[in-house]
Amino acid sequence: MLGIIAVDFGGTNIRAAYFPSPQPPPTSQNKTATLASEGPDSVITRLIQAIESQIPKDAVDLRIGIGAPGPLDPRSGVIISSPNLAGWTNIPLRDQLSEHFGVPVFLGNDANVAALGEWRFGAGQGTDNMIYLTISTGIGGGVIADGRLLLGARGLAGELGHLTIESNGPTCGCGIKGHIEAVAAGPAIARNATDQLEAGHFSSLKETLSAQGKITSVDIGKAAQAGDELAIAVIEEAGFRIGHHLADLAHAFNPEVFILGGGVSLLGDFLFEPIRHSLREHIMDPAYLDGVGVLPAALGEDAGLVGAMVLASQS
Amino acid sequence: MLGIIAVDFGGTNIRAAYFPSPQPPPTSQNKTATLASEGPDSVITRLIQAIESQIPKDAVDLRIGIGAPGPLDPRSGVIISSPNLAGWTNIPLRDQLSEHFGVPVFLGNDANVAALGEWRFGAGQGTDNMIYLTISTGIGGGVIADGRLLLGARGLAGELGHLTIESNGPTCGCGIKGHIEAVAAGPAIARNATDQLEAGHFSSLKETLSAQGKITSVDIGKAAQAGDELAIAVIEEAGFRIGHHLADLAHAFNPEVFILGGGVSLLGDFLFEPIRHSLREHIMDPAYLDGVGVLPAALGEDAGLVGAMVLASQS
Repeated sequence: MLGIIAVDFGGTNIRAAYFPSPQPPPTSQNKTATLASEGPDSVITRLIQAIESQIPKDAVDLRIGIGAPGPLDPRSGVIISSPNLAGWTNIPLRDQLSEHFGVPVFLGNDANVAALGEWRFGAGQGTDNMIYLTISTGIGGGVIADGRLLLGARGLAGELGHLTIESNGPTCGCGIKGHIEAVAAGPAIARNATDQLEAGHFSSLKETLSAQGKITSVDIGKAAQAGDELAIAVIEEAGFRIGHHLADLAHAFNPEVFILGGGVSLLGDFLFEPIRHSLREHIMDPAYLDGVGVLPAALGEDAGLVGAMVLASQS
Repeated sequence: MLGIIAVDFGGTNIRAAYFPSPQPPPTSQNKTATLASEGPDSVITRLIQAIESQIPKDAVDLRIGIGAPGPLDPRSGVIISSPNLAGWTNIPLRDQLSEHFGVPVFLGNDANVAALGEWRFGAGQGTDNMIYLTISTGIGGGVIADGRLLLGARGLAGELGHLTIESNGPTCGCGIKGHIEAVAAGPAIARNATDQLEAGHFSSLKETLSAQGKITSVDIGKAAQAGDELAIAVIEEAGFRIGHHLADLAHAFNPEVFILGGGVSLLGDFLFEPIRHSLREHIMDPAYLDGVGVLPAALGEDAGLVGAMVLASQS
């Protein structure tokens, strides 16, 4: 019987879980801090401990699936570099873990892996062409194209947050100007709200800013639910940008469904309604949108774990 | 023995050719005017005549492959609509031709089909991940992803000219603002040169504009070769934009090679050098460009015919 240890390896936390068969739910899981600043050796030790904690006593035919921050090469199993993991350059994580445990290990980009989870067990079930975006501090992506996860030459495809929307726009986390991530992810939403507050616009967020010294997209979501017009307008602006981006992605990939996850997607209809409106407005032909939904992710923060299980089970 | 009639069906001309085996060159071909303004019935009659003219007397096991302007659905064989073909809305071209000739017919988007040609017999041979762009009056695209032509849900994927580079930029042929086609295809290059001439900048193109009433990208190419600085700068600007776009496409698709065809690509190094420079400048990680070339298309205006043959032979 195939048992799978799935690992969601992030810049903040390491989550590991045991799936006794290739479907959710897992029968056990744990969560530990990554402590990325301590460097690769120390983090790999914690990864090994997290995995060991999940191995059942009667394990046979075990596999390990891991979603990790990229860029990484899923075919060679190497983490090429990572803005969120200090010191990780060309680290052959897959082979290191495979040697340590003596079982097959599968490594994938975190957003790609979450897309696999949503495709097999979440909001994308039954489709052959699906776009997954995770919108939080940054914007990550995963593409299911013609029934397969799109990888590209070195497995680096699907970095959908790093497509241009405004070539001279704000600088992105990656250092290039004008990507959709730079104008519509959480920090951009918070910055737009802060700018408007500082320009003297009225809003209940003024108090929040004074009290906390900063505001987040969570604060803005709460204010929007209480009817705050500035908060609603700032979310609408991000939704408009994201909808425009989805139209570009429709022209490139022609998906059956768009699935949005990540913290910012929890803003709900305040975000999704302007996204749907803007998508229709920026599409070159209505044939692209025939029956195409823009749906919230169904697996929440478990998408990465479930996807890592799918990655290991289907390979 | 498999014989293939390949058809390159464009808004201006219909080209048809006979390939006695699934490889170039064809043993015969012809070219007739499309006369699109006469409407679908009249154009389909000419398509049938063009195909008939290529059927050899001893034809057995014949197939027909057609590249046509989109949007079209290659799976159902229906031309959904077409800006360049008046009156073509939901026309089941594939089934009409298949009934008429009693042989299998395969229909594909013209740029996708040209990409197939370059992939199998042109500059993309031996790759599994390739981006093809044809840059002329508009910008069309075709994507080979993980060893297959990317189609998407309704076969509408790969419209790479209709991705945003400047959300409030000039209006594109498709009616949406700021697509790469609107800022870097032939008409945009000509418009930029004309604007600069009208603003009083010195250039040999001033005489061309006076004599012809307008200038084209061909005129600008000739002036660049003669050392005209304004012509060189205008081409460089388009190359800069296209290179930026290729970086976006690298993040989305992670190809091994970019292949550029179409009339504007004949501007050669004046265009390709700034494209390569700008691609490097706008890439988020050098891993995307490891060994990745930006190459001129190898098949020239035969890419569509050869690709239509490939489409029919591989299906």
